[in-house]
Amino acid sequence: MSLAHTSTAAQTLSPAPACHASDACVDADPASPAGPPALRGEVTVALDLRHAGRREVTLRYESLGAAGLPTLFVCGGISADRHVSASTRFPASGWWQSQGGQGCALDPARHRIVSFDWLGADGRLDVPLDPADQADAIAALLDVLAVPRLEAFIGCSYGAMVGLQFAALHGDRLARLVAISGFHRAHPYASAWRALQRRAVALGALQCDETHGLGLARQFAILSYRTPDEFDARFEPARVIDGRVRVGAEDYLDHCAARFVGRSSPTAYLRLSESIDLQAVDPRRIHVPVTVVAVEQDRLVPLADAQALVDQLPVAADLRVIDSPYGHDAFLKEVADIAAILGSALSSPVQTDCKETAA
Amino acid sequence: MSLAHTSTAAQTLSPAPACHASDACVDADPASPAGPPALRGEVTVALDLRHAGRREVTLRYESLGAAGLPTLFVCGGISADRHVSASTRFPASGWWQSQGGQGCALDPARHRIVSFDWLGADGRLDVPLDPADQADAIAALLDVLAVPRLEAFIGCSYGAMVGLQFAALHGDRLARLVAISGFHRAHPYASAWRALQRRAVALGALQCDETHGLGLARQFAILSYRTPDEFDARFEPARVIDGRVRVGAEDYLDHCAARFVGRSSPTAYLRLSESIDLQAVDPRRIHVPVTVVAVEQDRLVPLADAQALVDQLPVAADLRVIDSPYGHDAFLKEVADIAAILGSALSSPVQTDCKETAA
Repeated sequence: MSLAHTSTAAQTLSPAPACHASDACVDADPASPAGPPALRGEVTVALDLRHAGRREVTLRYESLGAAGLPTLFVCGGISADRHVSASTRFPASGWWQSQGGQGCALDPARHRIVSFDWLGADGRLDVPLDPADQADAIAALLDVLAVPRLEAFIGCSYGAMVGLQFAALHGDRLARLVAISGFHRAHPYASAWRALQRRAVALGALQCDETHGLGLARQFAILSYRTPDEFDARFEPARVIDGRVRVGAEDYLDHCAARFVGRSSPTAYLRLSESIDLQAVDPRRIHVPVTVVAVEQDRLVPLADAQALVDQLPVAADLRVIDSPYGHDAFLKEVADIAAILGSALSSPVQTDCKETAA
Repeated sequence: MSLAHTSTAAQTLSPAPACHASDACVDADPASPAGPPALRGEVTVALDLRHAGRREVTLRYESLGAAGLPTLFVCGGISADRHVSASTRFPASGWWQSQGGQGCALDPARHRIVSFDWLGADGRLDVPLDPADQADAIAALLDVLAVPRLEAFIGCSYGAMVGLQFAALHGDRLARLVAISGFHRAHPYASAWRALQRRAVALGALQCDETHGLGLARQFAILSYRTPDEFDARFEPARVIDGRVRVGAEDYLDHCAARFVGRSSPTAYLRLSESIDLQAVDPRRIHVPVTVVAVEQDRLVPLADAQALVDQLPVAADLRVIDSPYGHDAFLKEVADIAAILGSALSSPVQTDCKETAA
């Protein structure tokens, strides 16, 4: 991997130039009357992709908290983005809003929190993307941001897979990894589930209606994220309506699909979904402390894989198991459990009820 | 429900007229040199369907074993048919071949084994079909066959749901029910999974390629039938082939789809899939002894529902729990366990290794 600093990257490196002309440059307002400094930027680098050769790629990041603070790199699932939590500058809710804010696990008064949009998330890179490529992209981004070493990499789902890759490939830049609901391999059953989701997208594309197939894929994905116990508590039995059977969860699943297709590119979905299935890290290559978090009811990333990961790590590893009806989505829903684990991993006292206090 | 004996039905009722002209009449050969008597027939009856009013429906059945023997009615999942196991007359393997044959649980020397093609299986009845309608159809068929009372109803998956309906609606015609991996309700999570499968069929139909959507639906169904442990043992990690990621299970899933679309009607699939979701039996209406068989790893029909069923039954119920990596498909794969349970329920000594000896 090598860096090709473009003019955009150069702008990114300048100390604090508030630039509102374009999303392609640093978008920060250090003179903001309240709240920790927040900025967004993008940088173009050349990366040697494992399955597609050398490519110029654009990395879009967001940073929250002062540059001098210990840095946390935070990544979620394939549909998460660089906006982890709300700030004065970027007030929209982030994908991990429940853990971000003053006094919370991800506290910009104590840490600089950096994230980025996944390589491929803009749908313009239509090639196989390895999770190891994402780890290299993050290392390149940290070079640009002049962050030699992370206090912690905190990853959830695909983000945890990439975190393990980062720990294996760039372990000298990392003090600790927290891997939540994503491990060293893709489970063959989960891979099959994803492969069929990709076929739903392909089936939709055959009729030139990509959103229809993408929506169906997302709905099948939701089933893999959640659990029977949750559905049992939430949804009514099926009914006959206009000569067809409609089941209790269909309104909810339609809502999920509509929300998703409005903000997702089919190409990005296909390539990032594939990327999960390429996950293959040898745990013996990891030499930083790891906190592994698994969910008993996770149907996609089973507890047994977490145990296998911990067993194979040559370093101290802390396995934490959560009990949750939300299955794979527990990292978004079990706010207190996750906050306590993050607080312990970061050796920080944290509130465990940030869900209620967050914006 | 009332019977409308057509000429076909009349033929069916005649004692042993071997008629080879058409599948629409009894197809038996009592003069066959070996093996128990086997016959196929069809009968047209009028049924009051719960969601579609009064309809003339055709019931296609198969019977194996002498008419004087105690009768077992045997039903499988929505893709099973009337051909349970091979006979001299009908030598193709049946859907429950592993349990059928001399010395096995379903032994035509000791029982007359009757089954039928599900109402709607021919794809000509494009209306909502209640599992209770299937139970009424079976009662009508037993009238035609002059079987006043069953020694046992043995149902697997959807067949178990219909068996519970039969026990609730026609309990006076039944000595015992064996309900394997199908219970008194459709679980809301399993219903959601099926609803999405139906949407895959609909998505395929939009482009006038029904087989593509039907194949994808079947593949998602296979995932719901099987378990992560089985896939983990069987399939390799994903690979990049021609610029796309292909996961280990895809060849297998393609094989499953191809086999299925060649023998299934999209309309039948949609209506029988819907029918599962309409399952709603009040266990308190059942007053015959029931053996309930559940599989610990079943992702579609959870053990907790079996326990709830047993708890609500006002009669003696025997709950048997199987441990199997085959999940919902354990009734097809765990031959010895199922044979032992059937033998115990039927008070018959049975071989438990029929898989090896069956044709």
